[in-house]
Amino acid sequence: MRHLLDVTDFSVEELYELIRTAEDIAQNKEKYCQSCKGKKLATLFFEPSTRTRLSFEAAMLELGGSVLGFSEASSSSATKGESIRDTVKVVSNYVDIIAMRHPIEGAAFAAVKAADVPVINAGDGGHCHPTQTLADLLTIHRECGSLTGLTIGLCGDLKYGRTVHSLINAMSRYAGNKFVLISPSELALPSYMKDFMKAERLEYVETTDMDRYMSQLDVLYMTRVQKERFDDEKEYMRVKDCYILDNKKLAGAKKSLRILHPLPRVNEIACEVDSDPRAAYFRQTLNGKLMRMALILKLLREKDMPYNARKSEVHKDLNCPNPKCVTKTERELEKEFIFSDGEYRCAYCDCYVKNR
Amino acid sequence: MRHLLDVTDFSVEELYELIRTAEDIAQNKEKYCQSCKGKKLATLFFEPSTRTRLSFEAAMLELGGSVLGFSEASSSSATKGESIRDTVKVVSNYVDIIAMRHPIEGAAFAAVKAADVPVINAGDGGHCHPTQTLADLLTIHRECGSLTGLTIGLCGDLKYGRTVHSLINAMSRYAGNKFVLISPSELALPSYMKDFMKAERLEYVETTDMDRYMSQLDVLYMTRVQKERFDDEKEYMRVKDCYILDNKKLAGAKKSLRILHPLPRVNEIACEVDSDPRAAYFRQTLNGKLMRMALILKLLREKDMPYNARKSEVHKDLNCPNPKCVTKTERELEKEFIFSDGEYRCAYCDCYVKNR
Amino acid sequence: MRHLLDVTDFSVEELYELIRTAEDIAQNKEKYCQSCKGKKLATLFFEPSTRTRLSFEAAMLELGGSVLGFSEASSSSATKGESIRDTVKVVSNYVDIIAMRHPIEGAAFAAVKAADVPVINAGDGGHCHPTQTLADLLTIHRECGSLTGLTIGLCGDLKYGRTVHSLINAMSRYAGNKFVLISPSELALPSYMKDFMKAERLEYVETTDMDRYMSQLDVLYMTRVQKERFDDEKEYMRVKDCYILDNKKLAGAKKSLRILHPLPRVNEIACEVDSDPRAAYFRQTLNGKLMRMALILKLLREKDMPYNARKSEVHKDLNCPNPKCVTKTERELEKEFIFSDGEYRCAYCDCYVKNR
Repeated sequence: MRHLLDVTDFSVEELYELIRTAEDIAQNKEKYCQSCKGKKLATLFFEPSTRTRLSFEAAMLELGGSVLGFSEASSSSATKGESIRDTVKVVSNYVDIIAMRHPIEGAAFAAVKAADVPVINAGDGGHCHPTQTLADLLTIHRECGSLTGLTIGLCGDLKYGRTVHSLINAMSRYAGNKFVLISPSELALPSYMKDFMKAERLEYVETTDMDRYMSQLDVLYMTRVQKERFDDEKEYMRVKDCYILDNKKLAGAKKSLRILHPLPRVNEIACEVDSDPRAAYFRQTLNGKLMRMALILKLLREKDMPYNARKSEVHKDLNCPNPKCVTKTERELEKEFIFSDGEYRCAYCDCYVKNR
Repeated sequence: MRHLLDVTDFSVEELYELIRTAEDIAQNKEKYCQSCKGKKLATLFFEPSTRTRLSFEAAMLELGGSVLGFSEASSSSATKGESIRDTVKVVSNYVDIIAMRHPIEGAAFAAVKAADVPVINAGDGGHCHPTQTLADLLTIHRECGSLTGLTIGLCGDLKYGRTVHSLINAMSRYAGNKFVLISPSELALPSYMKDFMKAERLEYVETTDMDRYMSQLDVLYMTRVQKERFDDEKEYMRVKDCYILDNKKLAGAKKSLRILHPLPRVNEIACEVDSDPRAAYFRQTLNGKLMRMALILKLLREKDMPYNARKSEVHKDLNCPNPKCVTKTERELEKEFIFSDGEYRCAYCDCYVKNR
Repeated sequence: MRHLLDVTDFSVEELYELIRTAEDIAQNKEKYCQSCKGKKLATLFFEPSTRTRLSFEAAMLELGGSVLGFSEASSSSATKGESIRDTVKVVSNYVDIIAMRHPIEGAAFAAVKAADVPVINAGDGGHCHPTQTLADLLTIHRECGSLTGLTIGLCGDLKYGRTVHSLINAMSRYAGNKFVLISPSELALPSYMKDFMKAERLEYVETTDMDRYMSQLDVLYMTRVQKERFDDEKEYMRVKDCYILDNKKLAGAKKSLRILHPLPRVNEIACEVDSDPRAAYFRQTLNGKLMRMALILKLLREKDMPYNARKSEVHKDLNCPNPKCVTKTERELEKEFIFSDGEYRCAYCDCYVKNR
């Protein structure tokens, strides 16, 4: 059965296929309004994420299907100590497809192992949030006309920003893209991401200066600089205003620049920017809905195909070193690992096993 | 785009039109059961209000549409610091019409400024709750056969009772209505409301005695006397039982009297009254659903008409004096004011600006 | 109007009729997918119970109907002090049928007294949870081919387990069933249940040894042994592992044994058992949905028939001795009692009145 745990589950060709479907939906809404008639989506949100949940629900409703679920763990059996797998196993008897959000890393793969219906990872802790990346890809494609040959600025919290890492991964699969990494030094891109970029021979520069490369950017992906990320509050106070996008900072940017943001924003983009045609972040949420529609259609259509994305095997003698991994909390979960490039990584949270 | 922030947004003729539609729906349910097919309503409830939310959801479902949303702020992005406008802007990409409940006064107008779809104010703090008043109007019209020439008793908390003020405002637009204001002195109608009634030349009497005018009433609008409203608990204990409606108090009332209550009630109407044909408060909730159906139909039909109800202008040098106003909490909100009768009032919360 | 408060509301023939309908739905899904078109179910869950709620919602959606409601009390008017009856009376104006879950014993009968639409008891405190028992009955019927002549093991917490008592009651109505009561002595079946079994001339044995009768069982109904039920933690530690079902314990069981569990489970059934064909507990949740579909159909079809299940009368001089009874918390509720076999019991919570 096909599922979506991470964007890399899909080939480049499959991603283009999703984009084509989404663009067709945008043009021909009526054509799809009965596509999921009689089908049900469960939104199992073990932590609140209104935007993502409502986007999935709108997507399913626009396909003519219906929705049930919960919006936070306190409304779920998890509070009675039920495992993720039991919840998913039971809900498989109620619906045709599941979108699951969970605070624990690797929870999505645990769900996949129990599910009798396709599972979409709607975010599993700091691990993956692939439908956000699908929204980003469609937005870049619709706004810039292409996914190749772009100069992409990534600004704000590049250290913890899950969506930033995922977008770099995704855009690395298209030719000719360059990356400008803009952040305070405390929140710079982690070295393992830079190692990945070097291995993939991606062109990138790092800077703490938001203005420096502004004129070269085709895409500016904004994220929030959160106070809690700083050890030293003074340091936070010093840098916080440097990464706020306003009309002044945009003065030297290209007319064709497109500004993206995974939302919610707090103050990292001034409201005055909203009326600028380069502001694409609200259209991005529309694109998120369209890609979720395309995704639901694809997974329901291909549900009898095998899930090959994670070629894992059980290794009882290995342990995932990630303390936040689902293998630490979910009862009686088989320890599975993926072997690639001479290393083992946890099949749930993708954490590498060191010191074998 | 048309919205509903307050009942006064609609002309008297438009209110009659809503009433006619609601009465037609009551008679011809089948005729409307596909009217909103393919349409979606978002119920954005930043504070719980089950009755109102379920009424909106039932209304949309009976029109053949579907519903998504949230029932309290903890399930929304508001907890991540997102502005009302961003939430509404995003949700505009998911649905065709929004019903929003928010604890902050003036929140509805902030929402209107961002929305790309019609917004219905389902209550914004102590400011407005127009769909309750629509339910009240339909109930009076159906039960009394008219909106004119009625003697209307208002009983309980007339000081803080938002629905009471709104009903007085609404009924002042119909000829020949008289008002009997029944409350403990601590909870008497505020002077600005009495000033309004004098300016409109409305006939009214004030009394602390619930029995005194009972025999003259056509409508008795009951509200709850809440302990928290009293500075002095002894005073509360002294008066609390005086404003409880029971069969004994109803003995001298007209046969044609109709008893309304915005609900939920606690003990201000004894349960023995429920079986009296004069008790209209449960039918009132049915009427609330019917008026919400009529309202959704009207706003979707007229969504390309401009929203002219609040002729406001930006005044950077003016400040709304209301500490509970949305302008105090919502980021980067333009300060707008309405000028009428020589005075400025806040375009969000309707608070008058004094001491210019 | 017909309702479902307890399984005993239905005759044996009616239960077979529900089973036949459920089995027909399982075979002919399409035949029923428009049966409730235009109908609405309210899920009024005053306490969270995700599994039960989602099962009801899936059931209604698969019948072509729609759903509204709330999933916990904090989202309801109950927090404003509204009575159960007022909530139900109002919601009757919004929907065609109500499924209510409430933490207070007897709440379902209080709801029935106010409702203008059929009410399904989706659990009222420790009192009844009939739709779980309906799921159990269908599971036994589908898995064992019959409801008669079975040896039924009940294992775990037989003292507080509401579902266990309800299942014994239900299975006592079919001929030739024997019961094996397996529990630590602290959690043995209460004496009033044993008195009932004796009065009904049911064959049963009691044991603390899970292995002893394993080879004779046709059905093994597992429940959880909860730490909180023990006065003495040491005693809990001593027995807790004795009532965990694993492959080893199953070694001597019949091939035709079927394992049931009301779920959620914590660790009382090892995950290794899940892949055993005798494990019926996940299929049981599917059966729960099917029986809820059959039940909704029956109650909507028979809604004009009288509710005769509880022949109660008002007795102002009697008091229900149960401190958890809804008569202790719900305002102005008439005290009603059922007289049978020379004794009075509370019409709400079924507690017997002693020491008249």
